[in-house]
Amino acid sequence: MHPGELQRLVDSTPVHRALGLRVTGVGDHEIILEAETGPEHLAEDGGQYLHGGVVATMLDTAATFALIGATDTDWSTVDLRVDYLRPAPPGRLEIRGDAVHIGRRLGRATAEVRAADAGVLLASATGTFARAVSETRTGT
Amino acid sequence: MHPGELQRLVDSTPVHRALGLRVTGVGDHEIILEAETGPEHLAEDGGQYLHGGVVATMLDTAATFALIGATDTDWSTVDLRVDYLRPAPPGRLEIRGDAVHIGRRLGRATAEVRAADAGVLLASATGTFARAVSETRTGT
Amino acid sequence: MHPGELQRLVDSTPVHRALGLRVTGVGDHEIILEAETGPEHLAEDGGQYLHGGVVATMLDTAATFALIGATDTDWSTVDLRVDYLRPAPPGRLEIRGDAVHIGRRLGRATAEVRAADAGVLLASATGTFARAVSETRTGT
Amino acid sequence: MHPGELQRLVDSTPVHRALGLRVTGVGDHEIILEAETGPEHLAEDGGQYLHGGVVATMLDTAATFALIGATDTDWSTVDLRVDYLRPAPPGRLEIRGDAVHIGRRLGRATAEVRAADAGVLLASATGTFARAVSETRTGT
Repeated sequence: MHPGELQRLVDSTPVHRALGLRVTGVGDHEIILEAETGPEHLAEDGGQYLHGGVVATMLDTAATFALIGATDTDWSTVDLRVDYLRPAPPGRLEIRGDAVHIGRRLGRATAEVRAADAGVLLASATGTFARAVSETRTGT
Repeated sequence: MHPGELQRLVDSTPVHRALGLRVTGVGDHEIILEAETGPEHLAEDGGQYLHGGVVATMLDTAATFALIGATDTDWSTVDLRVDYLRPAPPGRLEIRGDAVHIGRRLGRATAEVRAADAGVLLASATGTFARAVSETRTGT
Repeated sequence: MHPGELQRLVDSTPVHRALGLRVTGVGDHEIILEAETGPEHLAEDGGQYLHGGVVATMLDTAATFALIGATDTDWSTVDLRVDYLRPAPPGRLEIRGDAVHIGRRLGRATAEVRAADAGVLLASATGTFARAVSETRTGT
Repeated sequence: MHPGELQRLVDSTPVHRALGLRVTGVGDHEIILEAETGPEHLAEDGGQYLHGGVVATMLDTAATFALIGATDTDWSTVDLRVDYLRPAPPGRLEIRGDAVHIGRRLGRATAEVRAADAGVLLASATGTFARAVSETRTGT
């Protein structure tokens, strides 16, 4: 899938738009997204760090889109493990998704969130995904 | 912790307010939250189901608050596994968090999301959490 | 499936025999196994605790057999999360498996390991499992 | 830690000796082990594939030893996610462990199992580990 198509698909989800997700890179099994997070994504009012659920959302999205981009079909998340390594500050973040294994019905993908500038690894994820049977996107 | 205190803590997070999270039950090791989700939480515009990241956010929050309520101290998420069993429809959802194991430094908690009325299990989670060293909430 | 049939299936695996696994209870979605572990399963020579891999093996087996018993078909492990709560001493252990969700292709099951006498929770697991397409057992 | 020291530590565990684990490579944050598996590790008598618990044991061990080698201190497994990508045949297998994140108290490590010759990825794992407080090895 071309970056433009992937961007359109990303944009069709309100949760993605609220995170300002932009497709900045696409490889054979990989996708790079950038997010623009703000005060509405913080773990507490006036705090310094993002809510863990926001980080999980970005990781889930990048992992799913790595599979979508690699296969041109839709995938839904079966399960996802998220590892929080360092508190993630708001602002511009880079999220990479990688389609590790593409089976007939099940896929595996990983994802990493880093600060856009420093490149420090903030959180990572590994998940199992199911290829969509119909056209309907359900799980992500 | 009393439900009122827990509700105030829940309310101090913009992500929680956006989900309309209300503390509806508190036990020794358990917390029950209700969420009110809407179109902004969907997996796609005009779709029928919530984004997986929204479900992960609710599960992470309930698991963390089960530990906070049980210990009167703050906890941050170290890692979290989320299992998506059925697509979650928007509207009113019930999320239960359960503090399974409370150690000196590490805790384990589980959480479940159900439709508020039907009670069907939609998704569940299991995670490892770290007791906050300082007062600052960082990980959730 | 009857306990006798499940026991025969358990016994057809050398790894299970080495753990002395016995089916001691079977419910609709549940199975209870007992293991008899010894010095060969320790984390170190002369040590006090079992190797984490031995604990994972028991949990994987109980979770898989909960699904096998509940459906009369074979299942293989797609992924498994194991939580180690307390070091597990050798000797007689009780492992419960619970089939949480049974789908057409995917199932979810949990498992818990306890000391046979005291009943303290030592470790737990949650996993995703795939229904076997052919008769061949492959994943467990 | 030198490969020789790591090998001695590996050899002090009966479970490792039963898998014929040999340290074949050591990097700053990485360890490579080779296992020699046989009929006693199969998922069923006369079967073609290893028991999932055996695969989990190898992954847990490699991940833990990546952290031990990188820090010269002991670590125990807090939790571990194992992903089974393809059924693992018996014989010679290569297991790589990688210490992804080393904190004061908690570490994260990943591991991969491949057939020693073909190099196909059979299974992978991600886990959280706790630095041992005393000298006693407990969790692995």
